[in-house]
Amino acid sequence: MSLPTHGVHSEVGKLNKVLVCRPGLSHERLTPSTSDDLLFDDVLWVESARRDHQDFVDNLRSRGVEVVELHELLIETLAVPGARDWLMDRKLTVNDVGLGLIDDTRAYLDTLDATTLTEFLIGGLATREMPQEFRSAHLALVRDSGGVTEYVMPPLPNTIYTRDTTCWIYGGLTLNPLYWPARHDETLLMKAVYEFHPGYTGSTVWWGDPEQDWGLSTIEGGDVMPIGNGAVLIGMSERTSRQGITQVAAKLFEAEAATRVVVAGMPKLRAAMHLDTVFTFADRDVVTYYPDIVDGIKTFSLRPADDGGLEVTKESDSFIDVVANALGLPSLRAVEPGGGWYAGERQQWDSGNNAVAVEPGVVFTYDRNTYTNELLRAEGIEVIPIRGAELGRGRGGGHCMTCPISRDPVDY
Amino acid sequence: MSLPTHGVHSEVGKLNKVLVCRPGLSHERLTPSTSDDLLFDDVLWVESARRDHQDFVDNLRSRGVEVVELHELLIETLAVPGARDWLMDRKLTVNDVGLGLIDDTRAYLDTLDATTLTEFLIGGLATREMPQEFRSAHLALVRDSGGVTEYVMPPLPNTIYTRDTTCWIYGGLTLNPLYWPARHDETLLMKAVYEFHPGYTGSTVWWGDPEQDWGLSTIEGGDVMPIGNGAVLIGMSERTSRQGITQVAAKLFEAEAATRVVVAGMPKLRAAMHLDTVFTFADRDVVTYYPDIVDGIKTFSLRPADDGGLEVTKESDSFIDVVANALGLPSLRAVEPGGGWYAGERQQWDSGNNAVAVEPGVVFTYDRNTYTNELLRAEGIEVIPIRGAELGRGRGGGHCMTCPISRDPVDY
Amino acid sequence: MSLPTHGVHSEVGKLNKVLVCRPGLSHERLTPSTSDDLLFDDVLWVESARRDHQDFVDNLRSRGVEVVELHELLIETLAVPGARDWLMDRKLTVNDVGLGLIDDTRAYLDTLDATTLTEFLIGGLATREMPQEFRSAHLALVRDSGGVTEYVMPPLPNTIYTRDTTCWIYGGLTLNPLYWPARHDETLLMKAVYEFHPGYTGSTVWWGDPEQDWGLSTIEGGDVMPIGNGAVLIGMSERTSRQGITQVAAKLFEAEAATRVVVAGMPKLRAAMHLDTVFTFADRDVVTYYPDIVDGIKTFSLRPADDGGLEVTKESDSFIDVVANALGLPSLRAVEPGGGWYAGERQQWDSGNNAVAVEPGVVFTYDRNTYTNELLRAEGIEVIPIRGAELGRGRGGGHCMTCPISRDPVDY
Amino acid sequence: MSLPTHGVHSEVGKLNKVLVCRPGLSHERLTPSTSDDLLFDDVLWVESARRDHQDFVDNLRSRGVEVVELHELLIETLAVPGARDWLMDRKLTVNDVGLGLIDDTRAYLDTLDATTLTEFLIGGLATREMPQEFRSAHLALVRDSGGVTEYVMPPLPNTIYTRDTTCWIYGGLTLNPLYWPARHDETLLMKAVYEFHPGYTGSTVWWGDPEQDWGLSTIEGGDVMPIGNGAVLIGMSERTSRQGITQVAAKLFEAEAATRVVVAGMPKLRAAMHLDTVFTFADRDVVTYYPDIVDGIKTFSLRPADDGGLEVTKESDSFIDVVANALGLPSLRAVEPGGGWYAGERQQWDSGNNAVAVEPGVVFTYDRNTYTNELLRAEGIEVIPIRGAELGRGRGGGHCMTCPISRDPVDY
Repeated sequence: MSLPTHGVHSEVGKLNKVLVCRPGLSHERLTPSTSDDLLFDDVLWVESARRDHQDFVDNLRSRGVEVVELHELLIETLAVPGARDWLMDRKLTVNDVGLGLIDDTRAYLDTLDATTLTEFLIGGLATREMPQEFRSAHLALVRDSGGVTEYVMPPLPNTIYTRDTTCWIYGGLTLNPLYWPARHDETLLMKAVYEFHPGYTGSTVWWGDPEQDWGLSTIEGGDVMPIGNGAVLIGMSERTSRQGITQVAAKLFEAEAATRVVVAGMPKLRAAMHLDTVFTFADRDVVTYYPDIVDGIKTFSLRPADDGGLEVTKESDSFIDVVANALGLPSLRAVEPGGGWYAGERQQWDSGNNAVAVEPGVVFTYDRNTYTNELLRAEGIEVIPIRGAELGRGRGGGHCMTCPISRDPVDY
Repeated sequence: MSLPTHGVHSEVGKLNKVLVCRPGLSHERLTPSTSDDLLFDDVLWVESARRDHQDFVDNLRSRGVEVVELHELLIETLAVPGARDWLMDRKLTVNDVGLGLIDDTRAYLDTLDATTLTEFLIGGLATREMPQEFRSAHLALVRDSGGVTEYVMPPLPNTIYTRDTTCWIYGGLTLNPLYWPARHDETLLMKAVYEFHPGYTGSTVWWGDPEQDWGLSTIEGGDVMPIGNGAVLIGMSERTSRQGITQVAAKLFEAEAATRVVVAGMPKLRAAMHLDTVFTFADRDVVTYYPDIVDGIKTFSLRPADDGGLEVTKESDSFIDVVANALGLPSLRAVEPGGGWYAGERQQWDSGNNAVAVEPGVVFTYDRNTYTNELLRAEGIEVIPIRGAELGRGRGGGHCMTCPISRDPVDY
Repeated sequence: MSLPTHGVHSEVGKLNKVLVCRPGLSHERLTPSTSDDLLFDDVLWVESARRDHQDFVDNLRSRGVEVVELHELLIETLAVPGARDWLMDRKLTVNDVGLGLIDDTRAYLDTLDATTLTEFLIGGLATREMPQEFRSAHLALVRDSGGVTEYVMPPLPNTIYTRDTTCWIYGGLTLNPLYWPARHDETLLMKAVYEFHPGYTGSTVWWGDPEQDWGLSTIEGGDVMPIGNGAVLIGMSERTSRQGITQVAAKLFEAEAATRVVVAGMPKLRAAMHLDTVFTFADRDVVTYYPDIVDGIKTFSLRPADDGGLEVTKESDSFIDVVANALGLPSLRAVEPGGGWYAGERQQWDSGNNAVAVEPGVVFTYDRNTYTNELLRAEGIEVIPIRGAELGRGRGGGHCMTCPISRDPVDY
Repeated sequence: MSLPTHGVHSEVGKLNKVLVCRPGLSHERLTPSTSDDLLFDDVLWVESARRDHQDFVDNLRSRGVEVVELHELLIETLAVPGARDWLMDRKLTVNDVGLGLIDDTRAYLDTLDATTLTEFLIGGLATREMPQEFRSAHLALVRDSGGVTEYVMPPLPNTIYTRDTTCWIYGGLTLNPLYWPARHDETLLMKAVYEFHPGYTGSTVWWGDPEQDWGLSTIEGGDVMPIGNGAVLIGMSERTSRQGITQVAAKLFEAEAATRVVVAGMPKLRAAMHLDTVFTFADRDVVTYYPDIVDGIKTFSLRPADDGGLEVTKESDSFIDVVANALGLPSLRAVEPGGGWYAGERQQWDSGNNAVAVEPGVVFTYDRNTYTNELLRAEGIEVIPIRGAELGRGRGGGHCMTCPISRDPVDY
């Protein structure tokens, strides 16, 4: 059992193990007319994106990080007795696949090995890809009419942002209800892993279950940062709601896993969809941030109340000062994008503030944000570049593309 | 028990009883910056819209139709022991209202009489409307941050289109899972009615339950027409999916309530969001339709299969000819919008094809579609106008604003 | 010669003569797919809009205002020898109509009487409306291809907002270069009037000429208010540029027609496209305004500089205080929309602040803005309603729909 | 005088001389909030784009092409006596820069050397970049208000697409009136070159002059292809109007420079903004095209009429067959994007059909369109890749980025 080593105790402590997901079939399905629905701003050259992603993974490994890739993890999971059926039962439902298509679809998928099935689970299965022998008359309803979804299983291109779907907060994790319906099935895949994969079963789940309807309660991991000292930062954003935040906070307090949740009330903007698009850590006391947004954050603290509920305090200090205070630090060194007004807006857009640390003072960021990277280096940070020409087109950087599974605390 | 008289057996038979919903508080919340999220194209003058709606109702009554209004129906429902708690338990949940706000909100709502509570159930309750004595520190999370929903209960302005939420199909009804999350709570209100109101309990529900998650299976009543002769037309549109249609069809066939479902595969366009925005009946053999869309419909028939499943047939005739065939008629007289290209597109937009009949050959339509109305009259139809200046701004006409509860069959 | 009586010397002095334009053919061409390009938010019921406009005109006349209608004015103008040729030479050019179509088009238009020609000049002439005998092979390029404009003369539905095209500022007028190319031809029609019509020739033109290219210098009359006391307010907006404002100011100062131009620097927003959409006068010292926008106006004063140029002063007082100061008043009574946050945004959108005065304390506004109208009445203003259900859909009210040609000064 | 060698006599003959423009300052001004107005879909990493562009230029040169770069050309032009004043007189006008800013701006620009001035001419000059000593009070109107353009000279990032601004058609050129006002000044820069630069003065200009207003007559070079055999293809698109096309055709026929203009009537779509985004030549008889658009093209031929006008013929053959016929060929080999539906739409979007030939059978295209490139190679074409990760974000490829000044005919 590898469990004792799982857990994320800071944003910059030594990163021991991390989950990523390589670009693939789902991204080959992005076109100018479909990318919006799949939450991508532009199409990307998949071959090139895969190579850049592989380089990123190789660099993480060369820094001593154990990198787990989602396709591989699912293939291993599907090999566990019961796992494949469990997942097929939940993916191929009357509500989602449609009456009359389930048996044929399942019969077809049953012919596939785990590797191919995984490719379709993440990459989607278009109705036109169903082999002739599994095509019923029902398929005509899908294929011949403009008025229907054209997938029997939808592509999940946002799995590349493993950060969002699940998050380890200290010794347990959340299985997040994501904001956009187009992403809901990502969490189901992760639940299969935590239910069946021998390296992951038995993990403590603080909150969340993709088999329930959570209404307006949504959480995405890009908004969640267990920074240490019993504190967790959570962005209250377009995608992470107060209804979700307060439930997670209550569970963490109940389990005594945290003592304070700092809520960052952000504007609802596509450019600032998660807290980590405008604010991340680079070292014990160094953060990179985008002032145009961060300066406008309204900050609250949640703490356990005496009656077992939540105590809400509105903070009057700036967000960054509140974060310093939550860590017990007098202040943080805060690095702006640099390069002036144009370059600042450009770099934030290009995930310039979306750094992921592998240890204190060593971060990965996109190569293209040259001003921000230079300013980080001036603060003594080692900056390892990721090629962002293709990977960046979904508006996520190194922080978004990594889901830490094991990270050490740092001393303050 | 009034039940035996409930049931909808045609699109043009004598209309005995119909459900409507008057404009109100929810529409006063529509502003240029909020109307999109609430699915309205423009703000409307509520006072004026209410007067126009009341005139519509008065005219329906003068034609011998029993008109039930949703606010009234809910007030009566809330008076039934258990109903109020049942509804409050389902509206005020941790997932939707948020931890820490439920007790205060419920305490406040408990002080209200049924009329005021109904106004908020449909009109929404803004956080800033919570009285001072019920405001906890938790409310600050909502009120003081730009990143959150500003309602404790959201407004439901689309209840004005009662047609969509539930539909009677011959002797039973469906409680529809609506496409947009912003409309989901409408069906919950209707379930309360059918669970508790003495005039409605015991009704046969073919399919649907707002307390379940239906995934991609959605149905909106604007797409559903029980035309008689055992046939039901269902538009497969942006808002009504094949996953929903096939489930409803299977239930109807199982209960032997219908023998054929004609599926109208429509393009996914806002201008043609439901079948009834481009096609409705005006008499036994007269329909009004918008050829630019209807001529492009791909038509399928679903029938019970020998093995208990569905048999799918792709039709090669035009949609209108298939409908005639389903009714056992040689053909239908089909009335276009008239007035040339500009006027045609204008009138379809202004719900020109969205007629609702009160008996064979007598329909209500908006006054502004003068060409269409004239052409209907030329076919011998009596056309009673509804003032559409305000009511039409949500892109729905007389058919959308009425949910027949009891309508006679017609002889063919 | 009626000339000495022309001139606009205030915003609220007795209105002697005003130019309007009735809805017509051009509005029948608005459809959901074309209205955006023609700058309308929605289609309108033209018949109804014409009746409402006629009532507005009748009410103006019953208040002693001489109302001139643009179609009539053009018909009279076309009767003047030379005028028709002058206008045809400028409308039917190789650049706009296209080589090979001019002769046929002109031959056809030459067969028309002045009334019909005027209808097409304002309403547009679609290529499909060219009679068979005037259709050359060239027309095929237009008619049979999706890639071309479908008019030989484009419709000008925004002529209904006569305020914008020309503006009288004290004793002379400007022939405005409008912001959107779709409106440029409006000014050409007005130039024909001022060049040929005996009641208008000889007027002093301060600035502007539709036969010149003005680059980034644009002015729209909705931004221009000659408030008296030698002052002119000009909104610097999406549609009125500093390049235009400074040129007009220089001309006014040179002619000693004004001594101060107060520039209202507005945000570039569709909802606040002109100054008069957020601020108008109702009485000598009463204005109606929309604080969400007006409170953010950056105010500058332009005055004649000693060297013959312009002196620019940035004002530190609020816009409304600067206006009071420009009039020599201690302060203005400023009426907000009223009715709370929702109603405020709704009423501004519905032109609630777009009042036009016929004499001090007597204004016309849309009926639908009941809160604003009530608050104006509470300040002693007589408010005469205009039905806005149809007319308001182009986002302009009574102020936008009127171009004062003669208005008295007021004493302060 | 190099003139006799200027002229473009085919799409695939030996390319002797070509004009390009490197990415630079103007692209550093692209941000998520400004790129739309500047007609770019996304921001680009300028450093990287410059390197990729330089590689493209180096590869062109290694193929024996003389490559002229626009910045260099302007610097040389500005050195010609009179040229700088000519250009300053036309850039710094009251209409565009604004009264009161001209003298200061000009005084500042007069202090700059030709290289720096050229950088601003193409890259734009923001008001905040005006040095302190040249800032008048007038600048406050620009700087301190949200309602104004913030440049004294606007950036021209689309100069990178030199193809559009001017086009050589056989022995002369056109100075094109471009569709979007944001691009108009590009043509003025080119006129300066052709008026003053010793290598370019004396060229025959068929049509066009940036100092005139051309109304609806617009031409962009991406739509223009002098394919040889006296024929010219011109796309009638969103950006190239029939009014422009017919004028150019008439001038070419009058000069006996061409005998037939084949008009490709295209749908008005951003994805197909010019003919060369869906159709280009790769060899004498090989074209690459995007069938989803090209199959819908309506084709016309213009020829000199006996009366000196234009004869218009509507073609019934497919566009590609008409092109073959215009070249006197029995047919063309037409290469589709390849890779299936997703890949096809992706590659067209990524300028997959936008090849530029340096000689028959040798083309440059973006590297990312691997399927199209492979299929071209299968037809015997040598395909030289251009890195498109950054350059492609403005939706233009190798054909768009090159303006041939001298290209040989090919024999058929």
